[in-house]
Amino acid sequence: MAQVKYQEIIEEIFNELKAKPNKGKVATYIPELGIVSAEKFGVYLRTVEGESFFYGDSNVPFSIQSIAKVLSLALAYKTDGAKLWKRVGVEPSGNPFNSLIQLEYDCGKPRNALINAGAIVICDVLMSQYEDAPAVLLDFIRTASGNSSIEYDMRIAQSEKSQGFRNMALVNFIKSFGNIKNDSEKVLDFYFNLCSIKMSCKELAETFVFLANNGRNLELNRDILTSSETKRLNAIMLTCGFYDEAGDFTYKVGLPGKSGVGGGIVAVYPNNYSIAVWSPKLNKKGNSYLGMKFLERFTSETGLSIF
Amino acid sequence: MAQVKYQEIIEEIFNELKAKPNKGKVATYIPELGIVSAEKFGVYLRTVEGESFFYGDSNVPFSIQSIAKVLSLALAYKTDGAKLWKRVGVEPSGNPFNSLIQLEYDCGKPRNALINAGAIVICDVLMSQYEDAPAVLLDFIRTASGNSSIEYDMRIAQSEKSQGFRNMALVNFIKSFGNIKNDSEKVLDFYFNLCSIKMSCKELAETFVFLANNGRNLELNRDILTSSETKRLNAIMLTCGFYDEAGDFTYKVGLPGKSGVGGGIVAVYPNNYSIAVWSPKLNKKGNSYLGMKFLERFTSETGLSIF
Amino acid sequence: MAQVKYQEIIEEIFNELKAKPNKGKVATYIPELGIVSAEKFGVYLRTVEGESFFYGDSNVPFSIQSIAKVLSLALAYKTDGAKLWKRVGVEPSGNPFNSLIQLEYDCGKPRNALINAGAIVICDVLMSQYEDAPAVLLDFIRTASGNSSIEYDMRIAQSEKSQGFRNMALVNFIKSFGNIKNDSEKVLDFYFNLCSIKMSCKELAETFVFLANNGRNLELNRDILTSSETKRLNAIMLTCGFYDEAGDFTYKVGLPGKSGVGGGIVAVYPNNYSIAVWSPKLNKKGNSYLGMKFLERFTSETGLSIF
Amino acid sequence: MAQVKYQEIIEEIFNELKAKPNKGKVATYIPELGIVSAEKFGVYLRTVEGESFFYGDSNVPFSIQSIAKVLSLALAYKTDGAKLWKRVGVEPSGNPFNSLIQLEYDCGKPRNALINAGAIVICDVLMSQYEDAPAVLLDFIRTASGNSSIEYDMRIAQSEKSQGFRNMALVNFIKSFGNIKNDSEKVLDFYFNLCSIKMSCKELAETFVFLANNGRNLELNRDILTSSETKRLNAIMLTCGFYDEAGDFTYKVGLPGKSGVGGGIVAVYPNNYSIAVWSPKLNKKGNSYLGMKFLERFTSETGLSIF
Repeated sequence: MAQVKYQEIIEEIFNELKAKPNKGKVATYIPELGIVSAEKFGVYLRTVEGESFFYGDSNVPFSIQSIAKVLSLALAYKTDGAKLWKRVGVEPSGNPFNSLIQLEYDCGKPRNALINAGAIVICDVLMSQYEDAPAVLLDFIRTASGNSSIEYDMRIAQSEKSQGFRNMALVNFIKSFGNIKNDSEKVLDFYFNLCSIKMSCKELAETFVFLANNGRNLELNRDILTSSETKRLNAIMLTCGFYDEAGDFTYKVGLPGKSGVGGGIVAVYPNNYSIAVWSPKLNKKGNSYLGMKFLERFTSETGLSIF
Repeated sequence: MAQVKYQEIIEEIFNELKAKPNKGKVATYIPELGIVSAEKFGVYLRTVEGESFFYGDSNVPFSIQSIAKVLSLALAYKTDGAKLWKRVGVEPSGNPFNSLIQLEYDCGKPRNALINAGAIVICDVLMSQYEDAPAVLLDFIRTASGNSSIEYDMRIAQSEKSQGFRNMALVNFIKSFGNIKNDSEKVLDFYFNLCSIKMSCKELAETFVFLANNGRNLELNRDILTSSETKRLNAIMLTCGFYDEAGDFTYKVGLPGKSGVGGGIVAVYPNNYSIAVWSPKLNKKGNSYLGMKFLERFTSETGLSIF
Repeated sequence: MAQVKYQEIIEEIFNELKAKPNKGKVATYIPELGIVSAEKFGVYLRTVEGESFFYGDSNVPFSIQSIAKVLSLALAYKTDGAKLWKRVGVEPSGNPFNSLIQLEYDCGKPRNALINAGAIVICDVLMSQYEDAPAVLLDFIRTASGNSSIEYDMRIAQSEKSQGFRNMALVNFIKSFGNIKNDSEKVLDFYFNLCSIKMSCKELAETFVFLANNGRNLELNRDILTSSETKRLNAIMLTCGFYDEAGDFTYKVGLPGKSGVGGGIVAVYPNNYSIAVWSPKLNKKGNSYLGMKFLERFTSETGLSIF
Repeated sequence: MAQVKYQEIIEEIFNELKAKPNKGKVATYIPELGIVSAEKFGVYLRTVEGESFFYGDSNVPFSIQSIAKVLSLALAYKTDGAKLWKRVGVEPSGNPFNSLIQLEYDCGKPRNALINAGAIVICDVLMSQYEDAPAVLLDFIRTASGNSSIEYDMRIAQSEKSQGFRNMALVNFIKSFGNIKNDSEKVLDFYFNLCSIKMSCKELAETFVFLANNGRNLELNRDILTSSETKRLNAIMLTCGFYDEAGDFTYKVGLPGKSGVGGGIVAVYPNNYSIAVWSPKLNKKGNSYLGMKFLERFTSETGLSIF
């Protein structure tokens, strides 16, 4: 794929989008997200051959929020294997209005591990497996990213917690069905930690490139997941990675990916590359306005997608 | 891909599955489905290079039912382009319990074109475009399949109609929101025609191979859809093709596809092949029990999937 | 109760309310309702001793709409007895958003006979009992009202039918669960007939006074229902008579009653009187704005309610 | 009403019911409820003239559970007046499946004060009014009952709390909409206290007789509520007092009342009497099996109901 002019295409789309009005809105439900400069915009692409292409604010760390749910899922899946699917499904979730009625209908089993309810169950699963699950997960993330300085951001975690009534409702509702084994509040503390991680586009792309590389970490030349596990994780990202916009992202971009309310999006083109985009202003569905536009244009212009 | 031993793998998996008990159940809500021999089992694979591999009852016609919804969507998308998405979404639908509340929440706009509600809207769209929409669609299907003898099966259509109270509820409910423009009963007649088509695995694979071939029909060497339209149709099949089991199919099989209540499944591996499997006994979610198992095994053993 | 100055109180409240702005809006979903003069306002009270008190447009006929559902229920209950409750419940229905999901949850059994779904089932029940159910019901209503000139208004019925997609959805949805035995369209035609009846406040009060009189018609001195049946019908009106405002009406007015989208309300004070109010402008819940206010004031000032 | 032979009728129905098999089941979700003797059965009727009629285990204290919600509502209504209805509705709640989706639809405002969600909001309202709300409420209950030894049962409250995940979900869900002002856990502690109160049938009937007496306490000859407040509280009990069986109770019994999962039911016949029944085995809707049957028979045989 060396013949594809990634850098050229990235810069062209980036500059075009930058020149137009950004119709998104920065998330403000916690102050830490609101204080980020709304104009930030960065892209980083990492190929499985080890090449890198980047532009804009690709080195600025930001709150990756829900993107981290892919990593906690990866660790839980690696640890528990297919029996994990007794606790959480692999089906897309439909609109947010349905989240609670769906949990009720499914007797406390979240539709998938990338919505809040499912990520909370994943935290619980990890806590049952590991004495100090937050430390084990952090270690796993540091290994995947090749960056030992990645930390939970306690200020963000605390801020989330102070507004986390809906998540507190979720964890207790699931526990009422017996699908949370540990103490509700501790599970939620872990969950808020998980969502507090900060990375730059560069770090995100470097962390996620193993999913484009059949599970193998490029730097360490070591398997994070098996090839089969990797395919399945990518499948879950494809159908469940964008909340109520999962179908739209698949339709327009055609790659497995995951977004966060901090404005980050990471996507994976199996056997080829990982790519991270960041722009804090969100569209109505809570996904980065520019990030979505960028990736749609990018896969169109490169002519590369899994379809 | 010539090196992959498709025929060998097909036969091996087929015979292994055939030897085990089939836990599925034949659909019986209309008599025409119930009278099919439950033991039928056939596979047909067609590559974009024009090779064919098949086994079992691959030449026996059966009721393709909802698989036909991909073809009506293809025609409507080709005709109306992206403005079609104002009438019907591209998002997966969640569990069936939600179907009506979701329609209410979304003001009569079905989540996607491959669930009943959406396919009914597609019929309405085609009726507004063409004076004799059923004939135009039949012509489109005959062209795609290269088989001019394909027909609506009036006995099946009539049988569906006599039990079609829920679909009659759907079409009227959608019409109450203004998203059906033609007469409810006529729209439904067209819809029941659409679902009445019979094809063999061979015909299905030959019809759908254009979706593996960037939209180009192999026999005619003519584009049915553009390359971009084809990718998007594949994306919709991936996220929406298996009702409440779409995520599970993507997770286990990793290919875009569509199932029908007659026990047929068609799947597409872009740039490589189309494959059709048929076995009438269904699992609890209404998809062919053996068909699902076969395809899961097949993509695992060939090591080929879009992820 | 002769000592209560009904006439004085009626006039006083009537004139006070008439002097203030009316914040309601006339229903316009069918033209026949929109052409009614929005300023009409009438009251008629009929005691079980045979006295009458009235004011304003109490003699002007209007479309009683859903109020007629009490009468079809009375006839079905008289005919079928308690086995009727296998087909339709006696529970309030919650908000309209839930109507369809509730039907799904309850497998096609409507919550009560005074919401659309339930009244449609009642029509079906009557059609299974009587060869010409519309004629039998009309006869029953004429007897109860003592007015042999009451007729279905075919123009209104036709107008309802031309907009009746949601009701067509309801009847077919219920039929898909097996709880409609007759042809959907014929059941609906009967239902639209039922809702097309016109009465004046005087006729309404005279018709409904048997519910205040232990089931006995005052004029004929004949039982329409038994005393026990009457109590139960009043109980159903109390909990189910005002859609999503049933609790509020009970809380504020404290009498069993039933409203119609034509702006009429009838209420019953057991052992004392029936009262009908009419003013076409509706509040947000679809009940007469002035009618609700009038009855609240009326039971407060007379100090009479069932509580 | 002295001519009605209450004692005779009570004994007759009691003995008849006692002789038949009891098809209910004792609630066991907390151990404290499971250890109660399932065969207990008591009745106590108290007229506004001060007469008493009783039979069976009418003097044995039991956990009144949700019946206490009427008393917390009475205090909150007395304190806050009609502005209370901005925080909680007066509408029946429909089936339990809907509880959460209804809260979502209504933006965190519970349908009424007698379901769990609403009673929790009432606790929050009282906590905002009174520095030591639990003490103030206990005082109010002691006054109404004329029994200064009534206490919260800490063992029951603790037991409820240890299983209270669904209620913890509820309070946090409501708080996420801003309709809980105090700390979630403290609100819930108060709520569990409220539900832990124990009374005998005698105490219940004596406590609730003020609702049959226009708000006036018989012993103290002092108003607990005004006459108008009393009517409205009775109206709310009638439409909302029996969860998903409110319509059925109104239909069969025809009196305002409230049930508890401990097997108690209290009902009020305005201007006449209060009556308490207790039998621990519950029907499928969670209301006392024998209690429901007793009251249905009782109002039928006395011929007295509000309708």
